[in-house]
Amino acid sequence: VRDPLNALQWEGDRLFILDQRKLPKSIVWIEARTAENVARAIETLAVRGAPAIGVAAAYGVALASLQQNATIPRIQKAIDRLRSTRPTAFNLFDALDKMEAVLELSHDDLSKRLIQAAIQYHQADREACMKMARAGLKLFGKDERILTYCHTGALATGGIGTALGVVKFAFAKSRVCEVYACETRPLGQGARLTVWECAQAGIPVTLICDNMIGALMSTRKIDRVLVGADRIARNGDTSNKIGTYTLAVLAARHKIPFHIVAPMTTIDYSLRSGKAIPIEERNADEITRITPGLREQKKIKIWNPAFDVTPAKLITSFVTETGIHTPPFAKLPVNPT
Amino acid sequence: VRDPLNALQWEGDRLFILDQRKLPKSIVWIEARTAENVARAIETLAVRGAPAIGVAAAYGVALASLQQNATIPRIQKAIDRLRSTRPTAFNLFDALDKMEAVLELSHDDLSKRLIQAAIQYHQADREACMKMARAGLKLFGKDERILTYCHTGALATGGIGTALGVVKFAFAKSRVCEVYACETRPLGQGARLTVWECAQAGIPVTLICDNMIGALMSTRKIDRVLVGADRIARNGDTSNKIGTYTLAVLAARHKIPFHIVAPMTTIDYSLRSGKAIPIEERNADEITRITPGLREQKKIKIWNPAFDVTPAKLITSFVTETGIHTPPFAKLPVNPT
Repeated sequence: VRDPLNALQWEGDRLFILDQRKLPKSIVWIEARTAENVARAIETLAVRGAPAIGVAAAYGVALASLQQNATIPRIQKAIDRLRSTRPTAFNLFDALDKMEAVLELSHDDLSKRLIQAAIQYHQADREACMKMARAGLKLFGKDERILTYCHTGALATGGIGTALGVVKFAFAKSRVCEVYACETRPLGQGARLTVWECAQAGIPVTLICDNMIGALMSTRKIDRVLVGADRIARNGDTSNKIGTYTLAVLAARHKIPFHIVAPMTTIDYSLRSGKAIPIEERNADEITRITPGLREQKKIKIWNPAFDVTPAKLITSFVTETGIHTPPFAKLPVNPT
Repeated sequence: VRDPLNALQWEGDRLFILDQRKLPKSIVWIEARTAENVARAIETLAVRGAPAIGVAAAYGVALASLQQNATIPRIQKAIDRLRSTRPTAFNLFDALDKMEAVLELSHDDLSKRLIQAAIQYHQADREACMKMARAGLKLFGKDERILTYCHTGALATGGIGTALGVVKFAFAKSRVCEVYACETRPLGQGARLTVWECAQAGIPVTLICDNMIGALMSTRKIDRVLVGADRIARNGDTSNKIGTYTLAVLAARHKIPFHIVAPMTTIDYSLRSGKAIPIEERNADEITRITPGLREQKKIKIWNPAFDVTPAKLITSFVTETGIHTPPFAKLPVNPT
């Protein structure tokens, strides 16, 4: 029996991907044997979460190199295909850039080197998660009540998670006593994944709809907000799941510390500010499908951006594997790798 | 064929109530012949919207007086039953207080007087809607883009609506060119009712999820926010559908005028501030039912408040049938009736 909290499992010549769309109702594994299998899993959100997408893509390149007809141009084509799956999460491009560098530098044992590079990328993400959990522990007092958003746990990464990894570690150390999770429309990553992963870890968890955050902050004690990131610009502006910006505005109004937890692979040093981060817009059906009769009304437009941008000034600190970074973020640490 | 935009239709000895839970998929009418029928329709949200609840309750008392075994104590019991249906919307209590006063003062023709009083209450609400629409017209420049929340149109009132009534009237006068509607989790009044009613009126309408409001305000031009109210305290603090407070905080941050549109029957002069407004909490199933496998997880708590409170300081102005009222709201006009 595979461990669902280890959602990306490499088995020498294939990648098993936990199908996150099926949770919490059932645990289903996708067996990916080609880069195209991985690309489809990313596009259809069977695997999601910025670090997990990066890890999956790295394995996708390794799979391309294992095909009988593998050539450098064909592997390059697989990289390009994987690069086109989703536009916002930077870890995807970080992983593919690193795999491409291996492809360019290797002259023999190409497949072996690419597999090794993918496994290393996965291992580095796993270690980054643990380092973030340890670094993040400094944030907390005792028995804090945490609000989180979307899903940033084990399923979203190669390790124990980003924001939710920090929270789970802090719970184990009695620094956190309770978690509030937001549903996260339209795909319900909070309702489907975060509450499930909290329950698995024995953390008391309360689910709210995204429009209840303001009411929660004004009527109950919330000590801290922790969320993940999909891409961080050089100045600290951060794109993350749609609704994060609203959450940050409310946290600022209620003077609740607001933290981003993300590995260094999420920082895009080529972007001066968040304005240049490409924001994916997804299909209207993701929104309409819960409302019988809605999609039949052809006169109604639907807007479905998957991410928004939170300005750096609303962010109290960043937790990365290199420690806790506080403003000004003009000098975010440079990726050592 | 009944007009669905006239959602409460009195026919001498029975009340036809449009079942709003079935929209936009189908148009179904409930035939209410007793106060209990009306009470159930209110409790189950077949009829919702603060002014509409008031009007329906008034007719419910009229129906109680029409029963073969009607006595003053039995009618009083029906009033008490109706009063217990939902706790937050003040119009319900306003309507029942007025019907109770008729009950107390009448010595003969009781049923006739109660029916007359209910019809008058309905008519007064219809007229208040038109007066609000005319008063509200002053708010707008030309071709404004409006963001609204939940549903505040014809279905929610005895007339053309509160906030959406103002918007529809302003659209007809070319002062509004486009509406953005928020889904309004968990019951989707925006996704089911507002976009439907806008499309019926020929207004270009775009639906977003509630967590996209911040992204909308930071990337597109929104000129004004108009919402309704369920109960307004003496100082202007306003309870309305859950998520309204979040919307008001975002509007303030983006310097977008934020208006409450509500008839005077929504003002509760007994309350000094919004802190004392009772907030209904509803069943967890309203939230969990879109997520397969969620309700089976017994360790997960759900919090489902139906309303939140927006402090007066976040409200640019109130539109009522007596005109537009701007801060300080310590002196909201006293209900003339």
